[in-house]
Order: sequence, then structure tokens, then C-alpha cells
Amino acid sequence: MAGTLGIAVIGTGRMGADHVRRIGRTVGGARVVAVADPDGDRVKEVAAGLDGASAHTDPAAAAAAPGVDAVLIASPGPAHEEALLLALARELPVLCEKPLTPDPAGALRVVEAEQRLGRRLIQVGFMRRYDAEYERLKELLDAGGIGRPLFLHCRHRNASSPSFFTSDMLISDSVVHEVDAARWLLGQEVTAVSVVSPRPSGAAPEGLQDPQLVLLETSGGAVVDVEVFVNCGFGYEVRCEAVGESGSARIGDGHAMVVQAGGRWGGEIAQDFTVRFADAYDRQLRRWVAAVAAGRTEGPSAWDGYAAAAVSEAGLTARRTGLRTPVELAERPALYR
Amino acid sequence: MAGTLGIAVIGTGRMGADHVRRIGRTVGGARVVAVADPDGDRVKEVAAGLDGASAHTDPAAAAAAPGVDAVLIASPGPAHEEALLLALARELPVLCEKPLTPDPAGALRVVEAEQRLGRRLIQVGFMRRYDAEYERLKELLDAGGIGRPLFLHCRHRNASSPSFFTSDMLISDSVVHEVDAARWLLGQEVTAVSVVSPRPSGAAPEGLQDPQLVLLETSGGAVVDVEVFVNCGFGYEVRCEAVGESGSARIGDGHAMVVQAGGRWGGEIAQDFTVRFADAYDRQLRRWVAAVAAGRTEGPSAWDGYAAAAVSEAGLTARRTGLRTPVELAERPALYR
Amino acid sequence: MAGTLGIAVIGTGRMGADHVRRIGRTVGGARVVAVADPDGDRVKEVAAGLDGASAHTDPAAAAAAPGVDAVLIASPGPAHEEALLLALARELPVLCEKPLTPDPAGALRVVEAEQRLGRRLIQVGFMRRYDAEYERLKELLDAGGIGRPLFLHCRHRNASSPSFFTSDMLISDSVVHEVDAARWLLGQEVTAVSVVSPRPSGAAPEGLQDPQLVLLETSGGAVVDVEVFVNCGFGYEVRCEAVGESGSARIGDGHAMVVQAGGRWGGEIAQDFTVRFADAYDRQLRRWVAAVAAGRTEGPSAWDGYAAAAVSEAGLTARRTGLRTPVELAERPALYR
Amino acid sequence: MAGTLGIAVIGTGRMGADHVRRIGRTVGGARVVAVADPDGDRVKEVAAGLDGASAHTDPAAAAAAPGVDAVLIASPGPAHEEALLLALARELPVLCEKPLTPDPAGALRVVEAEQRLGRRLIQVGFMRRYDAEYERLKELLDAGGIGRPLFLHCRHRNASSPSFFTSDMLISDSVVHEVDAARWLLGQEVTAVSVVSPRPSGAAPEGLQDPQLVLLETSGGAVVDVEVFVNCGFGYEVRCEAVGESGSARIGDGHAMVVQAGGRWGGEIAQDFTVRFADAYDRQLRRWVAAVAAGRTEGPSAWDGYAAAAVSEAGLTARRTGLRTPVELAERPALYR
Repeated sequence: MAGTLGIAVIGTGRMGADHVRRIGRTVGGARVVAVADPDGDRVKEVAAGLDGASAHTDPAAAAAAPGVDAVLIASPGPAHEEALLLALARELPVLCEKPLTPDPAGALRVVEAEQRLGRRLIQVGFMRRYDAEYERLKELLDAGGIGRPLFLHCRHRNASSPSFFTSDMLISDSVVHEVDAARWLLGQEVTAVSVVSPRPSGAAPEGLQDPQLVLLETSGGAVVDVEVFVNCGFGYEVRCEAVGESGSARIGDGHAMVVQAGGRWGGEIAQDFTVRFADAYDRQLRRWVAAVAAGRTEGPSAWDGYAAAAVSEAGLTARRTGLRTPVELAERPALYR
Repeated sequence: MAGTLGIAVIGTGRMGADHVRRIGRTVGGARVVAVADPDGDRVKEVAAGLDGASAHTDPAAAAAAPGVDAVLIASPGPAHEEALLLALARELPVLCEKPLTPDPAGALRVVEAEQRLGRRLIQVGFMRRYDAEYERLKELLDAGGIGRPLFLHCRHRNASSPSFFTSDMLISDSVVHEVDAARWLLGQEVTAVSVVSPRPSGAAPEGLQDPQLVLLETSGGAVVDVEVFVNCGFGYEVRCEAVGESGSARIGDGHAMVVQAGGRWGGEIAQDFTVRFADAYDRQLRRWVAAVAAGRTEGPSAWDGYAAAAVSEAGLTARRTGLRTPVELAERPALYR
Repeated sequence: MAGTLGIAVIGTGRMGADHVRRIGRTVGGARVVAVADPDGDRVKEVAAGLDGASAHTDPAAAAAAPGVDAVLIASPGPAHEEALLLALARELPVLCEKPLTPDPAGALRVVEAEQRLGRRLIQVGFMRRYDAEYERLKELLDAGGIGRPLFLHCRHRNASSPSFFTSDMLISDSVVHEVDAARWLLGQEVTAVSVVSPRPSGAAPEGLQDPQLVLLETSGGAVVDVEVFVNCGFGYEVRCEAVGESGSARIGDGHAMVVQAGGRWGGEIAQDFTVRFADAYDRQLRRWVAAVAAGRTEGPSAWDGYAAAAVSEAGLTARRTGLRTPVELAERPALYR
Repeated sequence: MAGTLGIAVIGTGRMGADHVRRIGRTVGGARVVAVADPDGDRVKEVAAGLDGASAHTDPAAAAAAPGVDAVLIASPGPAHEEALLLALARELPVLCEKPLTPDPAGALRVVEAEQRLGRRLIQVGFMRRYDAEYERLKELLDAGGIGRPLFLHCRHRNASSPSFFTSDMLISDSVVHEVDAARWLLGQEVTAVSVVSPRPSGAAPEGLQDPQLVLLETSGGAVVDVEVFVNCGFGYEVRCEAVGESGSARIGDGHAMVVQAGGRWGGEIAQDFTVRFADAYDRQLRRWVAAVAAGRTEGPSAWDGYAAAAVSEAGLTARRTGLRTPVELAERPALYR
């Protein structure tokens, strides 16, 4: 690699287009050299805005394009497994948007393929690990600043949900972020999931069980409760309070400018995850580029993607049955220890 | 009653002595005219500090003392039922420290005795209803300021627990405050209780299940989660966030003076409920005196005391069995509707 | 004094009526036995609401009424000197609403009269000294918690000013509170005053210089800046940040309930000093009653009233001339050291 | 310019090295092609870390190096004028670290040279204009969100000052940021400066007048007070509260993670401007690169650099004389209107 990392971006929808912009503006030392999307018009348009990038409708062609040093997968979840296996086949480092795959079985196949290769090439896009506040919380926990963690109290709220959102997606699409964050913050696996839900909000679309309260129990004896509410109306909000044996720490209060007017004090709430986590996305990409340039793969692994998928699946069962549901994980391969 | 309300205080331990002080200092229009406590020395000492109050070891004698217009019960829970029935027999207004009685059966007997009398004389000392922040939250909820309530997220933390505290008491003595607060804030009964607990904190005494996460489901479809942690180490903290269909509101953040020094910003945490709820205790007593002087009984009723005892009992079962436990309530008498 | 302190209240306007209510409700061990006001109807109405209090149009008659143990002066400032001298003549303890007198000359005459008596009987109603946050700040400063104080940054804002408010009154009526608070917090006298003002707010009445920035320099080398803004529109707000050699501390941020709705987070701003300082007024009265009952006079002295008047007068000169104006104080009598 | 903007960096000390790193990591579409520094070893070392950049001890040689499209000046202030004139002579866009020049006379010469050229090429590195909180405050003020601004209350604090810092530098090096921020936020010129100082902190080096209170009056009738305290001990802090006719807004409270432990709640204070303003520096550079690539020059102009120098000079006079000092500005050329 002569100075600049050449990246193939698979998928040029909202997330993919964001990543293309990011690489152009806020990441030094990298450039997009190929883009792929089944929508031929869209992919040509994206490529046209780039200096010398080739456009493809076939992911394999993009990965094989000249100058490609690494692959960024931002296609819909069901397309991930094929793209991942393809990148592994070419031994290219990959940054794959979450979920690794929509189901634990597919994720396990990816884990096994990477294992056969004998070295890590895959990083999953759990970008919260790159958020400055989460990083501080992780440091504090690791340093024992509040003692052994007992609880994580989490809030995950969106102003409103897209029309295709289902009751299952509150867990598989939203809470999955807390699943990874909890596993990472605590350094523990999730062992059981329960779901308790209030009567759905009148502001949620008919038939959507929104909000939900998801409880995770972990291998180290901590309890994680997640309020997930995707039609809360007031904005995008991600909070987490860790309670330990000797103190608590919370992140996500997110002050900034405080205005006093008309008898009230306060401020604005971010309306979108692209605002709240803009820096985390930037940092994720920069660290990935730096690591790949140095020949390393770091960050959330294929195993993390698999574990998240397994917990998510147990969560869906817990929601449907109303019962506490144990999480069954395969044995963790040495590669990921 | 000529101007000043004469009060008999039953029980002169910590809470009773506090109330005696309160009546002397911060409540106009009332004075203590009799005190009772099985500890004869203590009760004489308390009476000596008062201007013309009589000392008794028998509660009945105190209630029958000249000038007694009302009774304040601050003896241990197991002594409440007898003292309450005694006050009802003399048709004296009563302010009874929580719990009304330790068990639902006793509470129901008190409810029935008051019902036979045909009018309310009993107020239970759930003093959070008199806390300025809780009052504001109640007003907001009643006014529909955040829509129909979906969640109450509650934290109830003490720096450390007294030596006699048991795993059951985290529910029956601590969470019982949240039970009443939730019933009052939501105007709904609790229908089921579940308890999930992390591995106990190393800072808790051997054998004490501390902390716990208690989940209440209510008749109106709301979910209440309560973290109760009586050896959190850092101070006394009571927080509540209500999440509704169109917004959220939280109380208990409790800022005051913010200091910046040594690389940190922040402030002190109150160490004790007597600090956090000092005003609530004052206000409870003042409003009770004013209502009694006006011939009324308001505030938390014997029914509220009974309902709290019934939820608490279900909570103990839920904790022991690990199962979601429905709450069985008697039919609510007309007197308390 | 047999148990209950008998108080004569001079002046039954807004502040006087408030104090009467306070004594009735929130102060144990005291009652109002006489009230005086030039408005005969008003004073009779106030007395009628009290149990056995006599009504007077002449302050002297009220002070001489049977059962009077102490005097509370809440009449307009210009009437204070006469009422104070009258109370001193009867050797009655006095709580006098600020200002002691409107001018330094009158205040000095009161100081001299009390000095002749040889003991303190007068307390001035600078109630901020009884506010819990100010008390904490004072404790912190006295304990050296932030080192030697260098700055006090003060904000004193009202939603709107009454129609009779003048540009001078921003200093003599509003900033005078900061003058006393600064002298008390720092334990230093004010040595010079400067005033810098922006172009008046369009929301202020025509001709009113509102807001102003008042700078005080103190004998210990600290600088105090006070933004006084009596038509700020959004509410009542009193803030103070002390900056010392090793840290800073600020009070008055006044959070309570935080609401999230409609894309914003925040809370209400108190609209009035009676809300913000309700507890301080209560506490001032309770401590005064307790001290008087114990035969003592504590709190802000006549000297403090005099010093505030002298600084205020220098402030008015500074405002009119646009020049830094030294404060000339008489020598401090031994009685007030 | 084929895709990537080639930048010559003049000065490779702390700020220059930071900018080099920034361009490599967080700015897409640009690369450093030449570096200059009188310290030959240092400049070679910096160039060695870059892919194909030439090292120079002469700024002129760097500016003339092949592939240079724009110049970034990060040398010490006294070297700026020469480097700026040199860049103008080559008609290269420049981003110049503040100050434009140390004195108003030099700044005016630069203004005149750019004027002769007839188009803007110079941007001054007042990076606060790129801070997200300042941007929000500016938007709010411009939208009339709090009415016409009356006050800006500013705090500018450093944990400690470097050994070479002088009493003048508190104004010329520190407050100069508030001067630019105030001019930009208000869209007004500063018309007069006053300085009032407390007795210096014992924590400041002998002879250093630290802290100071600097007052700016503006052409639109606003008042700006700046507490500058460069040995405050506890960290780096930049706050600003704007008070307008109908409300106030403040920035810089800077919460993030809140920890509760040991009886206290709170968080860390950033220790350094590189932490507090890291994003602002990134954004400044990205927007400059984007603007230059599009053939434009935006952001703080040479006139802004000149005005800041003029206010700063008046501030030094005000500090030495203790008198309010008017600011004399040349007439504003059409190029900068």
C-alpha cells in the first residue's frame, strides 16, 4: 500500500453513502476506489462524485477491482454473509456494518471461515465502542473506579421509527447495540434475557410493541436493563448508568448549550444518531484505517457479531413467550480470546 | 380545639423524637401534650424537654391524656395496629408512620375498623407525597404533560444499611416507598411483582441480597423498575424518571453547589434521608395539622397502607421464588374511592 | 417569656403579611400578638385572621401592647428608623426587613443608638445568609475549600420590575443583597464601586437603565461583579460563583425536575424570590425566634445595615458619574467586631 | 489541483506539528507537501514522518516547493507578517494561526497588501468559530433567539501558565480569543476596554497579574466581561453566557460522564485546550481545505486579525493605566464588509 489505503464500499444506501463522505472528508490516508450496489444508477452516481472510483453492481467485482486494499460492507444485513466470505476469500480486511449477519447460524459460519484462515480480518461496526463517553466509561470500569459492576441501566430512544420497523426489530436492531456495549463494558457474556413491556404507546404505529424493557443477565452476575423506545417523540437519546460496588457513573446526559427563556431553562435534544454518534463513526473509520495500514485488525470481532446475534435471538424468544430465556453460545474459539 | 392542636406522640425513638422536634420548631399551631414509649427513661427525658407534656409508657394512657386532639404514631411497625385501633376507638385523627402494619392482614383489619366508623381518621406517613419534586412530577403527570405514563425508572440508594437489615427489608422497608409513590403518581394499583438480582455487592454484609431490581406492573399497563441498593457507599439517593407517551420527566438529580477543584467538578451527595426529605417531613406534618384543625383527614389513607403491604408481600414471594408474582387485593371500599 | 414568643409585626403589606403567615404556620414557639399599619382596614383584617392579636395604626402602640416580647419591622424603608429607635427604647429584640434605613446617615444614627444601649438587639433581614446554598458556600470559603477568594461573579435577575422601580433602585434595592452577601461571604468591607451598563433592554420601561453591571472591590483584594437585570423576562434568578486561588464554587443553578418533550430538555425557572428564598425566610425567622428565646441577638447587625447603605450610596454615585467611587465608612464600633 | 490539496506548513513547533498530524489523519483531500522551520533537525524529523514532503529552513522555499497549493502558518507571531506577505505575493491561500501579527501596525500592513490584491486569501486561526457550541450560540443570536445581546459573560481559565507568560499575555494571548469571539458573536466592533484586577492569586508566579477581569464595550451597546485566570489550578475552562433582551444562553458547561463515589457526584475537567477544542481545530482545517479546493476564502479575515490586535493593544493600556481605554480602528475596507 503506497501511502493511501484503497477501499471498496459494498452498499451505497444511507450508511454506505455516509461512509463514502466520511472517507473523503474526515479520514486522512484512505480513499474509496470502488463502490458496489445492486442499484446501478445509485452506484454510478456515488462513483461519479469520487475521483477515479469504479462502480459495480456485483460486490465480488468491487472487491476484485484494482487498488482495493480493504472492504467496507454497508449493504443490508441479509447480504453480509456472502460479502464477508468473499472478502475473507481474498484475505482483505473488512469493516462490516452491524449486524454481522441477521442470525446466529450465519454468524457462526463467518466465525468458522475466519478461524480457518487463522487470523482476524473482520471488524464489526459496533461504533459505540468508539464514542468518547463510552470509552471513558470503559476506562473507568476497567480501572475499578466504581468497583465490580452490578447494574447497567440503559435507555435507547428514537424520536420515531421508520415504517418498516417491527416489534422484533426493537431488539434485533436497537437493543443489539446495548448487547454489544454491555458485553464490551463488562467483559462478560450475556447468559439470559427477559422482556417486560408496558401497554404500547399510543404514539407508536398500530401493532408495534413499543416501548419494551429488556433485561440481560451476565456471566459475572450483573444485570442490564434496557428501555428501548423507538417512538418517544422527543429525540434520539442513548444513556447508560453503570452501578458498581463503590459508585456509579453515567453517560449520555449530553448537555451543550443551555438556554433560558420564557420561564424555562434547557436545551435541545439531538434528533438523530448521526448527530449523537457522528464522532464515533469518524473515529471508528480512522482507527480501522490506521490499524489496517499497520497490518492489524482490532475492534469488535466476528465473535462479537455472533454473540450479539445469539443474544438477540434469545431476546426475541423472551419477548414472544414472556419468559426468561437462557442464551446458548458455541464455545469461544482461541482466535477470539 | 382552642387555637393550638394538642398531639400525643406514640413512640419516641429516632422518628418519634424527630417529630417532636419538628412540632416544636417548624409547625405553628400545634404542640405535643403527651408522649408514650415503653422505655420509661427515654420518654421522661423527651417529655422534660417539652413545656407541660405528660410522659407515659402505655400508648392508651397517652391518647387519653388531657388536651390530646390527635395522635402521631412513630412506634415500631408491629405496635401500629393496636395504637391505630385505640385511636379509632377514641375517634382521634392519626398520623401513622409507615408501614401502616407490617402485614396485609393487619392492615385490612385497620381498614375495616375505619370503615365501620364511616369516616377517614388515619393518614399514613408516606412523606414522599409531600416532597416538592414529587409534587411537581405528580402535577405534570396529572396534567398530561408527558402523556400516558409507560415507565417509572426508580433508584433508591442508601450509603449503608443498619446491622439488622435483611434481604426482605430491601423490599418491605425500602421499596415500599416506591410502591406508594408509584400508586400515587400513576393513580393505579400494582398487579404483579418480579425481582431480578445481580450477584450481591461485596460491600454488603454477608448474606444480604443487596442490590435488587424490583419490577412492578400496574393496572394501567405501566412498568415500574426499582433499583434498591442499601449499601451503595456513596450516599442517599432517590431518583425517579417517568417516561410517557410524549415525553419524560425526572426528579432527584439534586444539584446545589457545584465545586471545581483538583481537576474535577461536582458536588456533595446527601448522606441521609433526613437531609433529602427534611422539607417533606415538615410539610407532611404542617398539612396534617392544618387539615385536622379544619376537621378533615387527607393524604395517604389506610387503604394505601394496606395496598403497600399487599404489594410488599408479593414482592417477598417474587424474590424468594424468582417468579413473577401477581398481587391479590381485597375489593376497595367506597370510603377510599 | 412563658413558652411562646409574642411578636409585634409593624407593617402588614406584602412582606409583613408573609411574615404573619410564616409565624402562624412554619415557626413553632412564637405567635403574633400585635400588628400595626397606617392602613386601618388592612391591619384589622390581618388581626382578624389571628387568634387574639391586637390591631394598631401606630407602631408605638403595637410595640407597647401586652405580651409583646419582640418586634418584626416590615414597613417601608423610610419608616424603619423611627420604628427601630422605638424598639431600642423599649429594649425589645428586632428583626428589621432590609434596608435598615434607606440612607447611611440614618443607619449610622441607629448604630449609635444601639451602641449606647451597649448590646445588640437588631437583626437586619438579609435573608440570603439563611439560604442553604449560600450557607454551604460560606462554609466552603471559611474552610479554605477553594483558597483565598478572588472573584464573586453574581447574577441577580427578575422577570420584570414593578412600575415604581427606578434606575437607582437596581442598586439600592436589588444589588444591596449582593453587597451584604459579598461582605458576609468574604468577611471583608467593600472599598470601591464602579458601574458599566449596556444600552438598556428594549423590554425595560422607557428611561430605566436596566440591566447594569456593578463592580465592587473589597478590602481583601477581591473583585465582585454583579449583573443586575430586573426585566430579564424569563424568571427570578440569583446565582453566585466564587473563584478562589485553588478552585471555584457556584450556587443558584437550581435544577429540580428535568422534562424532555418536544425536542427539548429542561425545567422551569422560579418566577419569584418568594419561591427561590421561601426556605431562607422560614429559617431566618425560626433562628431569630430561637435566638431571642435564648436571650441572644445574632445574624446581620445594624452595622451590616449601615455598611450596605454606604456601599449602595457609593454605587448610585458611580452609576451617575460613570466613575469608580470609593466607599467611605465610619469606624466600626467594638460592639460589631 | 488534482484531487488532493498540497499544503506547505510553516513552523513545526507544538501547533505546527499538531496541524501536520491533523492533515494526515482527520482531513481528507489534503496532504502536507512541504514543511519549514528554522530548526533544521526538527523540520527534517517532521518531514521524515510524511510521505514525500520536502523539508526547509526557509519559509519562502517551502511556499515555492512543487505541489504547494496553500500555506498554513504556525510559526511564532513575530514571524507571521513576513510569511503572510510571501504567501500573498505567490497568491496562495493561507491559514494563519492567531495572532495575525502581534501588533495592529503589522496587521494593518497585511490588510493593505491583501486589499491591493483585491481578493481575500487569508484566514486567521480563530478556531472558536468552528467549535460546535460557539456555532450554536452564534446561530441562536443571529436568529434573535434571546433578543438583542446585552452581555457576554466569559470565563477563560487555564490550569497553569507556561514560565514565559507575562501579565500582558493574559490579554494579548488569552483574552484575544474572547475579543474575536465577541466581535463574531455580536457582529460588532469593540469600542473601549477596561481592566479591573483582584490581588493576584498566590498560585500565580511572582509578579504575574493573574487573574484579571477585562471589560469590553461594543459599538452596539453590549458589555463583555472576561475573567481570565491562567493559573486557576483545576483545569482548562472556556465558558460564555450571552444575556439578551428576552433570554440567556450559555455554553462551555461541558458535562460528559458523571461519577458518583465517595459522597460526591461530578466529573473531570478537561486539562487542556487541545482536548476542549480538538474538534474545532479539526473542523477549521476541514472547512478551510474544502473552501480552498472550491476556490474560496472564508472564515476570520485579516481584518478580524487586525481588529483583535487593536483591541488587545487598548487592553494593555487599560491594564497599565487602570483607565477605560477607547479602541481606535482604521476605516474598514470594502473587501472586508
